[in-house]
Amino acid sequence: MDINFDVKRLGKCSVSSPIEGLHRSKGFHYVNEQERVLYDSSLKSFNEFKEREIQPISFEKAGPFEKIYFDPSKTKVAIVTCGGLCPGLNVVIRSLVRQLYNRYKVTRIVGIKYGYEGFIPKYGHEIIDLTPEAVEDIYMYGGTILGSSRGNQDVEEIVDSLERLNVNILFTVGGDGTLRGAQQISEEIERRGLKISVGGVPKTIDNDINFIERSFGFETAVFKAFDIISYAHNEAKGAYNGIALIKLMGRDSGFIAAHAALSIQEVNFVLIPEIKFDLYGANGFLEHLIKRLQTKKHAVVVVAEGAGQFLFEGKEAHRDASGNLLHNDIGLFIKDVMTEELDKRDIRHTIKYIDPSYLIRSAPAIADDGKFCNQLAQNAVHAAMAGRTSFVVGYWNQQFTLLPISAAVATRKKVEPEGELWYSVLEATGQPMYMVNEL
Amino acid sequence: MDINFDVKRLGKCSVSSPIEGLHRSKGFHYVNEQERVLYDSSLKSFNEFKEREIQPISFEKAGPFEKIYFDPSKTKVAIVTCGGLCPGLNVVIRSLVRQLYNRYKVTRIVGIKYGYEGFIPKYGHEIIDLTPEAVEDIYMYGGTILGSSRGNQDVEEIVDSLERLNVNILFTVGGDGTLRGAQQISEEIERRGLKISVGGVPKTIDNDINFIERSFGFETAVFKAFDIISYAHNEAKGAYNGIALIKLMGRDSGFIAAHAALSIQEVNFVLIPEIKFDLYGANGFLEHLIKRLQTKKHAVVVVAEGAGQFLFEGKEAHRDASGNLLHNDIGLFIKDVMTEELDKRDIRHTIKYIDPSYLIRSAPAIADDGKFCNQLAQNAVHAAMAGRTSFVVGYWNQQFTLLPISAAVATRKKVEPEGELWYSVLEATGQPMYMVNEL
Amino acid sequence: MDINFDVKRLGKCSVSSPIEGLHRSKGFHYVNEQERVLYDSSLKSFNEFKEREIQPISFEKAGPFEKIYFDPSKTKVAIVTCGGLCPGLNVVIRSLVRQLYNRYKVTRIVGIKYGYEGFIPKYGHEIIDLTPEAVEDIYMYGGTILGSSRGNQDVEEIVDSLERLNVNILFTVGGDGTLRGAQQISEEIERRGLKISVGGVPKTIDNDINFIERSFGFETAVFKAFDIISYAHNEAKGAYNGIALIKLMGRDSGFIAAHAALSIQEVNFVLIPEIKFDLYGANGFLEHLIKRLQTKKHAVVVVAEGAGQFLFEGKEAHRDASGNLLHNDIGLFIKDVMTEELDKRDIRHTIKYIDPSYLIRSAPAIADDGKFCNQLAQNAVHAAMAGRTSFVVGYWNQQFTLLPISAAVATRKKVEPEGELWYSVLEATGQPMYMVNEL
Amino acid sequence: MDINFDVKRLGKCSVSSPIEGLHRSKGFHYVNEQERVLYDSSLKSFNEFKEREIQPISFEKAGPFEKIYFDPSKTKVAIVTCGGLCPGLNVVIRSLVRQLYNRYKVTRIVGIKYGYEGFIPKYGHEIIDLTPEAVEDIYMYGGTILGSSRGNQDVEEIVDSLERLNVNILFTVGGDGTLRGAQQISEEIERRGLKISVGGVPKTIDNDINFIERSFGFETAVFKAFDIISYAHNEAKGAYNGIALIKLMGRDSGFIAAHAALSIQEVNFVLIPEIKFDLYGANGFLEHLIKRLQTKKHAVVVVAEGAGQFLFEGKEAHRDASGNLLHNDIGLFIKDVMTEELDKRDIRHTIKYIDPSYLIRSAPAIADDGKFCNQLAQNAVHAAMAGRTSFVVGYWNQQFTLLPISAAVATRKKVEPEGELWYSVLEATGQPMYMVNEL
Repeated sequence: MDINFDVKRLGKCSVSSPIEGLHRSKGFHYVNEQERVLYDSSLKSFNEFKEREIQPISFEKAGPFEKIYFDPSKTKVAIVTCGGLCPGLNVVIRSLVRQLYNRYKVTRIVGIKYGYEGFIPKYGHEIIDLTPEAVEDIYMYGGTILGSSRGNQDVEEIVDSLERLNVNILFTVGGDGTLRGAQQISEEIERRGLKISVGGVPKTIDNDINFIERSFGFETAVFKAFDIISYAHNEAKGAYNGIALIKLMGRDSGFIAAHAALSIQEVNFVLIPEIKFDLYGANGFLEHLIKRLQTKKHAVVVVAEGAGQFLFEGKEAHRDASGNLLHNDIGLFIKDVMTEELDKRDIRHTIKYIDPSYLIRSAPAIADDGKFCNQLAQNAVHAAMAGRTSFVVGYWNQQFTLLPISAAVATRKKVEPEGELWYSVLEATGQPMYMVNEL
Repeated sequence: MDINFDVKRLGKCSVSSPIEGLHRSKGFHYVNEQERVLYDSSLKSFNEFKEREIQPISFEKAGPFEKIYFDPSKTKVAIVTCGGLCPGLNVVIRSLVRQLYNRYKVTRIVGIKYGYEGFIPKYGHEIIDLTPEAVEDIYMYGGTILGSSRGNQDVEEIVDSLERLNVNILFTVGGDGTLRGAQQISEEIERRGLKISVGGVPKTIDNDINFIERSFGFETAVFKAFDIISYAHNEAKGAYNGIALIKLMGRDSGFIAAHAALSIQEVNFVLIPEIKFDLYGANGFLEHLIKRLQTKKHAVVVVAEGAGQFLFEGKEAHRDASGNLLHNDIGLFIKDVMTEELDKRDIRHTIKYIDPSYLIRSAPAIADDGKFCNQLAQNAVHAAMAGRTSFVVGYWNQQFTLLPISAAVATRKKVEPEGELWYSVLEATGQPMYMVNEL
Repeated sequence: MDINFDVKRLGKCSVSSPIEGLHRSKGFHYVNEQERVLYDSSLKSFNEFKEREIQPISFEKAGPFEKIYFDPSKTKVAIVTCGGLCPGLNVVIRSLVRQLYNRYKVTRIVGIKYGYEGFIPKYGHEIIDLTPEAVEDIYMYGGTILGSSRGNQDVEEIVDSLERLNVNILFTVGGDGTLRGAQQISEEIERRGLKISVGGVPKTIDNDINFIERSFGFETAVFKAFDIISYAHNEAKGAYNGIALIKLMGRDSGFIAAHAALSIQEVNFVLIPEIKFDLYGANGFLEHLIKRLQTKKHAVVVVAEGAGQFLFEGKEAHRDASGNLLHNDIGLFIKDVMTEELDKRDIRHTIKYIDPSYLIRSAPAIADDGKFCNQLAQNAVHAAMAGRTSFVVGYWNQQFTLLPISAAVATRKKVEPEGELWYSVLEATGQPMYMVNEL
Repeated sequence: MDINFDVKRLGKCSVSSPIEGLHRSKGFHYVNEQERVLYDSSLKSFNEFKEREIQPISFEKAGPFEKIYFDPSKTKVAIVTCGGLCPGLNVVIRSLVRQLYNRYKVTRIVGIKYGYEGFIPKYGHEIIDLTPEAVEDIYMYGGTILGSSRGNQDVEEIVDSLERLNVNILFTVGGDGTLRGAQQISEEIERRGLKISVGGVPKTIDNDINFIERSFGFETAVFKAFDIISYAHNEAKGAYNGIALIKLMGRDSGFIAAHAALSIQEVNFVLIPEIKFDLYGANGFLEHLIKRLQTKKHAVVVVAEGAGQFLFEGKEAHRDASGNLLHNDIGLFIKDVMTEELDKRDIRHTIKYIDPSYLIRSAPAIADDGKFCNQLAQNAVHAAMAGRTSFVVGYWNQQFTLLPISAAVATRKKVEPEGELWYSVLEATGQPMYMVNEL
């Protein structure tokens, strides 16, 4: 991983950015190539770097460039969406098309169907023409009009296909696996000496992409989770010793679970991948749950899908078609454990188990998320038109940024067990800092 | 079952209905005890009854009575909610309290916790005072502030408890089992020579109560199902040969499934308890599903929880605590059957299975449902104050009605396989009238 | 007005209804031409008609006919939407198209733009081809993809246009004025000896069409009004002596105001066109409002746009382009009167005035309304294909019906001042039955 | 204004923060008093400050302190909400109470009614006890349970009242005027030598508080505006040359208008206070509007309430009770100007004017906003318990911060006419960069 986070360029930008519609834009502020955003905005970091006399870690700032690389009238663009659904995919597609069409006058835009499969001849998927009319209303619904699939495909075949289609810019919208694929595509392109830009709009509903504060779809997920927890809370209160157990997304990180619990403040226990917990014992989860029932007669438990995987240790691991580690179902596991323990102790109770993942992933983006999708797409188009490649668009310290794909996929963001967010969650839920018997 | 559907009365009504706040209500129209609503509003029925010279079947009209049975200042009321959650329970509770308090000046109202359990000493549940202040905001959320439980309790113990509490009117909000319990309570009350009115607000999210056009919560259920199907549709379209399978409520009837499919018109197959279907064979469900995939590459299937129970024949039957027959899980079954068949035929596909029951049952009532709850509650209070007992409030041919409990629980409404509603569904889905190989 | 409410027919039905997709429909129940729905479903009415030995008033039942008039392969259909926006217009359009296309295999369907204007050459509006693909997603948003306009156009020019376009069936979706126009079109068609069916889907967000229990869009309006009143209630409570005044639709009838107040039960005063009220005096509205403020420190007032028009007597009257009587703005008037009186009495207060009409009219239909739109459209297609003309589709006593346009537009439904609905509203608001000083 | 942005402290913190419920929190990370967040996170700024050898501008980091100033068991807290409604007020109140109660075991918390008026004896407003039970469900609705009022009150009387009530901590939730009042209260407290902490949760739906990236309620406002614009768009398309004109909040800044337009991308013109525009002339707004109508036959215009105030120059200015400059109604003005010009040019058109302010201000906070409210409140409690005073809680570069009130109210944030946000809006709307005839 390049610590400088410099984004690759296809070549020198010598075409003037079209400005029609931006009347008399004398003062228009294009991005200066030297503009960068600090990674660490603390005063402490400032002083450290100052003392060590080295430049601090920073990211390129995204935005429109005065000179661009591609000649719009000769540019053809392909868009592909990969992996599981995430709110905002259609908004990103729409906004990429509109920005290319209206801002840069690029009129040849095609959609690749069903993820990377759409490039591979044997699947026989059609190519779709993407015009502003075709994408006009798609922001109203979730999913992706292009369809999606999991898993990567043969990189050479993909680049063959890009060549056959005369594509100059490829936008990939997808998660870790997809972006790694995009990087390989970009490397193969370079090997062949082609001038094709590969730009990524990183997609993870879990909001755990490295060096990126926020990913699209996350806020809609929290919005949806809020309602679901609210309803689950009604179920819990509706029965004597009622327990509502909600499994939320979060394979490697607990951001959705943490933010949702923090937003509604009706959750009593949040279990996330980053925090170990014991089930049994005096300070285990079950003991605390039972104390809660004794005083309040109901409880709401949120579990992220990747929580408590250590409980399955020794059991077989699986990976899905994208190579993501498949987790054993912690939701059902916790449900069974609770039932067993409460029955053993002869505590009458009712458990309602709710797994709303599909209903969250397929929702349309809410306003603020849609806005964010639009800004990501606008900046992705700016960067690609300016010949950046193997990049993703990010957001950091209140600014849109550009990152090499390699930086974004290196590791994942995590909820820090002793950090600000998690502490706010503890205060909101009242659960103990650690539900373990031995620290 | 009494074919006249006459509602029992505790005695003569001799107290004047309070009219404060209904200034100068000279013209106010109280319900005339002779007002009745025809069961069959067809011209054909008119002519048949006319010819046979007998009175047609009809229901008592609900509404305010000029003379009432109970003296408000001496009346104490108990409210209990039983069975599974249903949107609108809190609205019914709030409206019963407000109507009693504001309209009739009855100020002693108590809530019984966790269904009929709340009457039984051994459970030790508290009694709650219900004032207008206490119920002011509860319409905003789903569930029931009183809690609920399934199953009936010892009738004698319940009546002992009503006596101890000096209750004059008991409102029970619940389904079939609950109402049968209410009828037994009412019979025990009569046996003891007590003057306690027992009124029911019938609750079934499935909308399958006999002789009642609409039950509260149903419309909210369809409203919620609409969104869920919309999202599921996004999931289906998002994958190659994507299938979204949604299990909706409907233990003995397919009304929710049928209305939801009709409302959104994005469903391709609806399976309900009333309509037999074959899985295999040239005209079976799977063959039609595969045809759909071949032409459209995605499909949306809705299955009511009580559909296809014949597929489990020979297997063990269960009943829940309320005595409801528990069904084998047709959703998971259909999912497995589809997977198996598509795999066998080597058809690549993705199935997303969604079971949103808890999220629907625990939702707050939408406006029109809330209005309906309010009107049911208002009319339940009118009837009980006028000494009606062992009754439920209904709605038929655009009028609120009163029915003996016995009539309401005798049988269940069904979707008619060759009726108007189902035919509309077939037109909306495009599915064949019968997916069976032999008629 | 024809008291028999018989719908006109273009001629004998001799074409078999297509049944593809309705596999083995041996048992399929087509509508029998003698099936009719009673207007009055009370037992009292039964006995009166029986005694008088005359047939009671009844409506034709809607539904699919076994034999139809038009040959689908030779049929061309036009659809036009007129008047103000109403939730569900797009659902009706979509469902008409789908029913024609899928059920009857009619493939030539055109949309007329901007209401009746679209027929008139001088406006130069284009004609739109309506295919299932073109209308696939339009149910997701409010408004009408065809556009609309108020006011009628020259009937002869319209029929000239229908002839030029070779239209066999015209569906008009609109209110009173539109339907009267449709009737005239139908009469001109008859004069010319043409065989063109004119069918109406009656549109009034106010739900005040004669002989029709429910009109599409109304339920969505109440749904939206519920939220708006809820928010207004927050505004009222947020200030000392805060008054929220909401003007809702209802030019000649107070159904929206009444149902909305009944659904949320947070409204203290509802003023509607059907109920006279005094502003001043011991029993006038202002006195009651002030009493409310004295005890509760806030108040919510809903006023239907057509309420209190007597207050403007002697002032000039206006009509809009459709001929609807334009009302003086009662909302602003009441606001001014309240301000003046409270200022005069030195009562500190804050008034928030909210007029959400456009935000309600342009909303997408909610599920139950969408379902209703679909059923209206399906039945409109059945009737038109069977050669019915100058008709509207209605709903009465739990059945879809067919009515001559003349019957539907003869008068308007009203909230009965001493009827069940209004009394429920009084109980829900606590306002006096009559706020007048002299009865 | 103190450029160091140091927050005042009442004295030394010597009480240990209670940690019950935070079991074995050996590793718990309290905020270090030296932790600060850089104002400018650009690399350029880093290098400039480094070169100039001075410390960069930074803010104190918010969070829990290990040692606190007040002894929880002896602490009494008052909460007051002031100014216009804003989504999230109730969430802030609830979260302040819960954090005080659950985290710090402060049990004596009172609510002051109707803003600063509640302190002044002559108004006679009651004091409310705020317990976790009393605030349990209030997050579900908008408004403020405490009520509010505009305008400041006599500072000495307020401090008299704080003394009489034995209040140790006062939380004020309000905008500019309110915070200036809080600062004066804090100064008077200091003059009297009292030890009362005054903490502010800054409230502005317009999101234009200095040095604070985001203010609560803003995101809900954009969420609501999204729907409203969507509906308005339906109205615009529903008529020939239909124009929907929506006035959104934004007295001095156009953030809501800009973000809403960016989120939905269906707006064609956005007029905000920061950008001058001409109405007439070849490059004026009206000419561009007419061009839009000619090509698309409809247009959506969003105007912030503070836009185009120069058009009223020479006319009388007003201030509201809080001292905010009242603007002439630009919405109605633009509506009239459009009507006049289009009529003059004989262009048939329909204008729908929508002013949804109250419906936005009184909405409940959506999930992400609720979460933010909770975090603001948690941090406000941490800071006040640690003896900070005359402070507000802020958010900057992904961290919660503490600012002196003086810094927050010094000036307002603005949309930069040549900045990133506005440029994104221009790209999304297609409107010219400047609609002026002379630059």
